[in-house]
Amino acid sequence: MSHPATVADVALAAGVSRQTVSNVLNRPEVVRPATLSRVQAAIEDLGYRPHASARRLRTRQSSTLGVRLEPVHGISGAVLDRFLHALVDSADARGMRILLFTATDVADELAHIERLVEGSDVDGFVLTSTFHDDPRPGWLADREVPFVLFGRPWGQPEDRIETLPWVDVDGRAGLHEATAHLAAAGHRRIGFLGWPSPSGQGDERRHGWQDALAEAGLATEDPVALVCEDDVAAATRTVARAVAEGAAVDALVCASDTLALGARFALGASVPVVGYDDTPVAEALAISSVEQPLAAAAGAALELLMGSGRSVLPGPTGHHLLTPRVVWREDVGVRPVTDR
Amino acid sequence: MSHPATVADVALAAGVSRQTVSNVLNRPEVVRPATLSRVQAAIEDLGYRPHASARRLRTRQSSTLGVRLEPVHGISGAVLDRFLHALVDSADARGMRILLFTATDVADELAHIERLVEGSDVDGFVLTSTFHDDPRPGWLADREVPFVLFGRPWGQPEDRIETLPWVDVDGRAGLHEATAHLAAAGHRRIGFLGWPSPSGQGDERRHGWQDALAEAGLATEDPVALVCEDDVAAATRTVARAVAEGAAVDALVCASDTLALGARFALGASVPVVGYDDTPVAEALAISSVEQPLAAAAGAALELLMGSGRSVLPGPTGHHLLTPRVVWREDVGVRPVTDR
Repeated sequence: MSHPATVADVALAAGVSRQTVSNVLNRPEVVRPATLSRVQAAIEDLGYRPHASARRLRTRQSSTLGVRLEPVHGISGAVLDRFLHALVDSADARGMRILLFTATDVADELAHIERLVEGSDVDGFVLTSTFHDDPRPGWLADREVPFVLFGRPWGQPEDRIETLPWVDVDGRAGLHEATAHLAAAGHRRIGFLGWPSPSGQGDERRHGWQDALAEAGLATEDPVALVCEDDVAAATRTVARAVAEGAAVDALVCASDTLALGARFALGASVPVVGYDDTPVAEALAISSVEQPLAAAAGAALELLMGSGRSVLPGPTGHHLLTPRVVWREDVGVRPVTDR
Repeated sequence: MSHPATVADVALAAGVSRQTVSNVLNRPEVVRPATLSRVQAAIEDLGYRPHASARRLRTRQSSTLGVRLEPVHGISGAVLDRFLHALVDSADARGMRILLFTATDVADELAHIERLVEGSDVDGFVLTSTFHDDPRPGWLADREVPFVLFGRPWGQPEDRIETLPWVDVDGRAGLHEATAHLAAAGHRRIGFLGWPSPSGQGDERRHGWQDALAEAGLATEDPVALVCEDDVAAATRTVARAVAEGAAVDALVCASDTLALGARFALGASVPVVGYDDTPVAEALAISSVEQPLAAAAGAALELLMGSGRSVLPGPTGHHLLTPRVVWREDVGVRPVTDR
């Protein structure tokens, strides 16, 4: 950028001191009207614009939120990217910007957060991918740094959990809806494929399946619940082995699209499969999937952090648990009830 | 954040003027040694840290690059997100941060860029998704705002094209490698599925296929070149119709993974298909695909913009065309040459 006009240029052009120019910009009420209009004319003539950093320094706000950009892996990796897109949109509407950083692990993330806090580079943080015994909420709360979690405060101390601000999507409700719909359509042996416990999200999703089975009166026999790591090939092996060993399922709800894709390979297209996250893979292969309301989640996170205003609140609190919906793509119409 | 120590606090504690504290921070050589150590002790005691905005104001640098976060759609949408991840990593290593913004279209993007430039909020831009007659490079070049393109300056005026800084991946080389490998493995009727012309990237990829066919002596008969929009169902229809009308292909190279997936549905697993972008979908379905070197592209973009240093150069220029590689996932071993 070529030499921009400075306060000194404006002062020279208007024949006033730099302090007077500063007063015109920050406390115009203390400047005499004739001087005010002379300085304003010079500002206009020179095209002077106060430096953004100077504006921010005056207000002691960076108008910036820090967000860790997490490594993308696998089919569902894009979900956090989609949340980030929604967050940037919501933040933009409130005059806030998003500053990205990456980290190799949680310790490195805390080191980044510490640097950003010490430099007053951000007004607060949006933390994603919460996990059991996550050290980040405590670290930030102890330092009175505003933040909001996308994800529940799994396993946080009881005295803290009430006040932590978080937004999450109710995976239990999502799996409940998927399972109840399949049951209503006549499926009687609805299995579940998830991750090993303990897993905050995975356990919630399994409970949703269990609840719906019980409500539909389908939980009397031992329902098929399978677990494996979140990997397509592992899911295919796990489901194929279970079927070979006699597990009978006429539908399968899964904790992720990755698991659903693996299950689809093992079961073929005749057994309805429901995934989670409504990824492009599920869409491309016409696999039904639970869709997270990411735009609503981003909006709710900013509402906790900023209320209805344009600056970060000193001590955000409260939470929102949003309900997802199932995107149905397969034929899960009513079947004859034969095996009861 | 609770009340942080200010310059006034330090001045009061050290019994000096605020100007002296400022001198200690910015021009310590002009401060008497005894005063210097008294002020430094007060800074230490109070835990005072210069405000980041103030630091940036002193250097007239924001240490920030602006990047538009583009809407994600479809299977390949995540490629720009993966580039962004690599860019944040590379920028972090140079002390630069990435500021994100979204825009509804190019006019809106230019409005955002203009606001960021006028506020001195960024030192430069990384522009993605270049297209024919893209107005952004001219707009920025006219205003001497540093930028680099990820994507070639398709259709820019001749007098400008030489000096525009850009980084791109050589899709022509990628399709050439894929086609040459299939030809060497014995395939004789290697078709192409791409997008309608003119398409900068699509036409480059088609040329790579044509070059390799000619080199392998396979271009004498009319090779099968199909086009459709970038959609799975459209690709399936297009390939199925061509096959029904007598088009014989024993392998197919495609301009995208979306097209490759549609082609796979139409052709079945016995005909090797190669996609482009090495998306999670291609990996999950074991479809071979051309992988873009996104980390290298991000590093090259920053090198054009910043040289080897830690600040943006006033007038970046030059370009890098990077070679992708094919990730082979299908059996494309040597076949008996029967149909020549």
